[in-house]
This record gives sequence, C-alpha cells and structure tokens, in this order.
Amino acid sequence: MGLDYRVRCCPDGLMTDRRRSVRVLDVTLRDGGLCNQWHFDEGLVRDTWQALQQAGVDVMEVGYQASPDLVPSGPFGPLRWSREDDLRRLFDASGMRLSCMIDVGRIRPTDLRPAADSLIDVLRVACYAHQVDEAIELCHAALELGYDVFCNVMAVTMCSPQEVDGFLDKLRASRVPAVAVVDSFGAMYPHHLRYLIRKYKNWLRPDQEVAVHLHNNQQTAFANAIAAVEEGVDWIDASVFGMGRGAGNVPLELLLMHLDDPRHDVRPVLGLLDRYVALRDELRWGYEVPYGVTGWLNQHPRAAIARMKATPVDPLGFYDELVADRPRAAHHRPQREQGVVG
Amino acid sequence: MGLDYRVRCCPDGLMTDRRRSVRVLDVTLRDGGLCNQWHFDEGLVRDTWQALQQAGVDVMEVGYQASPDLVPSGPFGPLRWSREDDLRRLFDASGMRLSCMIDVGRIRPTDLRPAADSLIDVLRVACYAHQVDEAIELCHAALELGYDVFCNVMAVTMCSPQEVDGFLDKLRASRVPAVAVVDSFGAMYPHHLRYLIRKYKNWLRPDQEVAVHLHNNQQTAFANAIAAVEEGVDWIDASVFGMGRGAGNVPLELLLMHLDDPRHDVRPVLGLLDRYVALRDELRWGYEVPYGVTGWLNQHPRAAIARMKATPVDPLGFYDELVADRPRAAHHRPQREQGVVG
Repeated sequence: MGLDYRVRCCPDGLMTDRRRSVRVLDVTLRDGGLCNQWHFDEGLVRDTWQALQQAGVDVMEVGYQASPDLVPSGPFGPLRWSREDDLRRLFDASGMRLSCMIDVGRIRPTDLRPAADSLIDVLRVACYAHQVDEAIELCHAALELGYDVFCNVMAVTMCSPQEVDGFLDKLRASRVPAVAVVDSFGAMYPHHLRYLIRKYKNWLRPDQEVAVHLHNNQQTAFANAIAAVEEGVDWIDASVFGMGRGAGNVPLELLLMHLDDPRHDVRPVLGLLDRYVALRDELRWGYEVPYGVTGWLNQHPRAAIARMKATPVDPLGFYDELVADRPRAAHHRPQREQGVVG
Repeated sequence: MGLDYRVRCCPDGLMTDRRRSVRVLDVTLRDGGLCNQWHFDEGLVRDTWQALQQAGVDVMEVGYQASPDLVPSGPFGPLRWSREDDLRRLFDASGMRLSCMIDVGRIRPTDLRPAADSLIDVLRVACYAHQVDEAIELCHAALELGYDVFCNVMAVTMCSPQEVDGFLDKLRASRVPAVAVVDSFGAMYPHHLRYLIRKYKNWLRPDQEVAVHLHNNQQTAFANAIAAVEEGVDWIDASVFGMGRGAGNVPLELLLMHLDDPRHDVRPVLGLLDRYVALRDELRWGYEVPYGVTGWLNQHPRAAIARMKATPVDPLGFYDELVADRPRAAHHRPQREQGVVG
C-alpha cells in the first residue's frame, strides 16, 4: 500500500495534537490492589515501576494513604496504606512522579506528611458529590504541603445534573488544579462521557485540568478513553492489562498504542504482560456478564463481584434479582438508576 | 433519584429512534464455530436457536455453504457446511430468519439451492475488495433464487480510499440490497468506523442497507457498535458472550441492553450464558494482548492466534517480530499497515 499519505482517507493524525498532549496516570498497583488486597510480589512491583518509567508514563499511582485510626486494619500488602518506609524500599525518588489516592473521611488533613518528606508527588482526593466541601478542604491542605492535587468525584453517573453543576461550581471557586470524571460503575457509553467532559471543561476554569477514570463493565473503558482524548482531556487513567477490581480499567498497552506519542514506548509495558496475564488468570478481572448488567443498570459492581464467586453464576437469575424492584419503562423494561446516564 | 426525566441531562433517548430501528444478526454459531471447528453440542445449538428467537433477534447465522469440491474436507461439525438435512434436524422453519455465509471462490452459483427448498432465508456473500465482481454475480444469483442477500467486503481497513470508492461504485450499480462494513482485523477505532459508515451510506443508493461486522481485538467492538447505531446503520452483527475467533465479536447481551428495544428481550440470552462462559473458559476467545497488537498494526490476527498457543506468550517478543520489517514514522515508531486506518 505504500506510504502515500494523500491516499489515507481517515488518518488518526487528525487527532495527533490531542493524542500527543494527553498525560497518562497508571493505576495498576492502586486499583489492581483491590483484586489481591495489595499482596503484590515485590519483584513485580519494582519491575512495574521500572517499566512504566521507561514507557514514559507520567504518574504512577502506588496505593492509598489514610489516618490509621480511621480505617480498618487488615491483612493488606504494604501498598494498601503506602507507609513511607515501604515506598522507599520499593521505589526510587528519581524520574516518574508517584501518586496516592486519599478518601474523604479516611484521612485528617493534619495527618498528611509534607511533600518534601515523601516520595509521593501527587495526591488524588476521592469523594462522592455530597462530600465535595471536605474534599476541597483536603485538596487545599495537600496543596499547602506541596503536592500536585486531583479531585476525583466518584459515581458521577448517579448524580442529577443539578448535583453535577453544584460540585463543579464549588470546584471552580477552589484552588483545586485538576478534576476527574469518574465512571465508578462502568455505566457510561461514549456519548455520556463526552457530555460530562464538555460540562466539566465548560464549568471549570481554563487553568483547571480534566482527567478521566474509567471502568470496563460494558467493554467501553478503552473506547471511552479514545473519546476522552478527542474531547481534549488532560489526563487518562490506565492500568497494565486493565488490572482493576471487577471488570477492570483501560488497558495501558492499548492506550499507549493509540496515543502513538514519541514520549511513550509501549515495549516495556509489553514486557510485563506475561506476568500480569498470569495474575489475571488467578484473580480473574475483566469483562464478565454480571459486570455488564450492573454497568448497564448504573449501580455499584459489588453485587456482581460477589456473584462471580457463585457456581453457577446464573446471569439470568442475577439480572432478575437486581431488576425485581425497579420501576418499569413504558415498554416494560426495567429502568436503570437515574442520573446522568439513562 | 426519582423518575423526573427533565433532570436527566444525557438521556440515551436522544438516540432512541436509531437504537430501536436497527436490526440484529447473530453470528454465534457461524463465527463462533471458528473456535471449535463447529463441534457444538447439539442441545446447545437448539437452545441457542430457541433463546435467540425468544430474544427477538432478527436473523441467526448458522454456518457456511460451499461447493463440496471447492473446499477442503475436514473433521468439522455439521454447521460448517450447513447441509440441508442437518439444518432441518437442528432448527425449525418457523420464526426467526436463518442465514449462511458463502465465500467467493468456494461456491459456484449453480450449486446454490433455491430458497424455497431451504431453511435458509438470507445469504451473506463474503469477498475481498478485488473479488467484488464475482461477489456481485453470486449475490445476483442468490437474489434470483429467492434469498435476501448481503455483500460483506472483508478487511476494508487494508483498502486505499480509491479501492473503497471502487467497490462501492460497483455495488451501487448492482441489485445487492445490503452491504456490510467489515472490520476483519479489529483495527478500527470508532472514528474509523464512523468515517466508513458515512462513506458507505453516501455512496450506496438510499434503498441499499448498511451493516457492520466488528471484532474485539482492541476492545472496541461494542463501542464501535454503539457508534454504528449513532451513524444510523441498519444491521449489527453480534454473538453470545462475543463468541468468535481470536478476540471475538460484539457481545449480544451488551448490545441488546444498549438497544433497549421493546422488540428485544435480553433475558433468554442471559439464560444461555453459563454454558457459553464455560465454552469461553475452554476455547479462550476474547481480548488478549497479541490480538491488540495485530489489531493496532492493522493485520490479520492469524499470527496472534498462533502465538496464543505458545508458552510463554511473550507479547514483547511477538510485537518485536511483527514490527521488525515495518517502515518507521518520523518519530521512529513502526507504521501500521496503510489503508483507511492509519
């Protein structure tokens, strides 16, 4: 076919400017840890850090932080709560920036350590829409301590449009520099995500960045990431082989091939994949029908995750249980949870 | 959250007219048979027919037809070549229409049986772009014999724009009533598919229908189907749990939930899924990294299918082998095969 660009009728190059300016935040260890309680082999953790660094990933999220007395203790691996000595044992301060997620209600602003004393460069504050005031307070505390900060408002598909406007209004008035559109339930089709990205971008100040965190319950995570690039987002979350709870996330390898950015190199990520495929065969994340059902119904995947442990899974029985009490549309089909999908 | 539709900011209802007019063609047995050489349990075949019929699927594709002397014989299950007595043993003439695929070069027009003597109602003629003249001849012969007919031009992502214009020009001048956009390699992102659907719809006569057949190599099959609905296609191919060679197809269960069409009912399909999940665990279709690599490179998945039988799979070595001889873009990344993706 040759290399005559004039005959190529649909070059991805039309989106080159956007594909090559978006930044990638890897959540393999943080979100993937939900599959194995953060009991990662430490050799794999170090190799993942090394590979992502070589691949040109912009930020690697390694785990959560919390105030010890505000969270249950449990037999978790060390990245669950990201103690500084564990981080220093596993990672290197040079190169790629590292992030932690912090949940509103699970950490006091006074328990945050100064960024100068930590390997962590970025804190991502997770909250629900009704917690946005506390989230902004936590974001401001983290900014004061020298971190880069995101605010991730989870489960936005459950919000009414007024609720979305409400928290965006508060975020616009804040010093929070970046806000993520979070499809916690994997409920979004691409047109839902495009709508929300446009809303976030319109509503926030031009100097505030927009990120996306997507789940694959309905096999739309990667395609939603493509839509997010087209809509001009600044940050996309992804994970190696899509590792993450339930149906998982945007596969980093597919995203890096799509972005085709000279700053990135997919090869080191491909070099990790035999080991992550073995983990998937053991831990079984990825699309399964119950995740598709909860995604479509716009509800939390916890029922699907529990159901996947049953034998037989019986997807029809699962569906019937979930929709039994739902209102019906005019044509007698069950309604999804109302919100910005529907 | 209530049911106040006024507060729903992004109703899928905006696409209701298109979602509820598109028709669904199931390829579980025909395309899925590529995974198991059509050695399906006959009880499952009958239950699949029954469930798809109850689900309101418009057409069920059961296998291929060929002239016996033009195809290799082999230890195939009965649906491989769809002998009429096998069909009559497995299916019922009432209700849902049945289709077969026929490949240009593997069947003589004179070997087609009249539609009145067959359980089959629809023939889908598969060809490559350079075979479109023979395909049109076969389509016309099938029309004369009383069939509904599609022409599926495979691997369109390898064609130059001029080649696409060329075969569409011939199809427009023909009596072929429906033409499919076929993403044989799973190479398309949604914007590629949208481009091609617009081209097909513009180029063909208004009375000619447009269909899509999609593969999931890059986890975009279902999202591409959503894009196809939005672009106003008439037919979408899908299969139960995405069953199909390599990375598989559009999952029928996700598609029916998305379409939300009163003519459809997803429940009978969900009732099949424990058995199809068991088949998937045995036959292993669905996304794996080598399929993503061949999809991105815009090449046939046969190398990836072979590679998936290796231990370890070594996706990095696989990638390096495939791209070794490819020309490089300005930024030293390997080029995909040129064509309408790129």
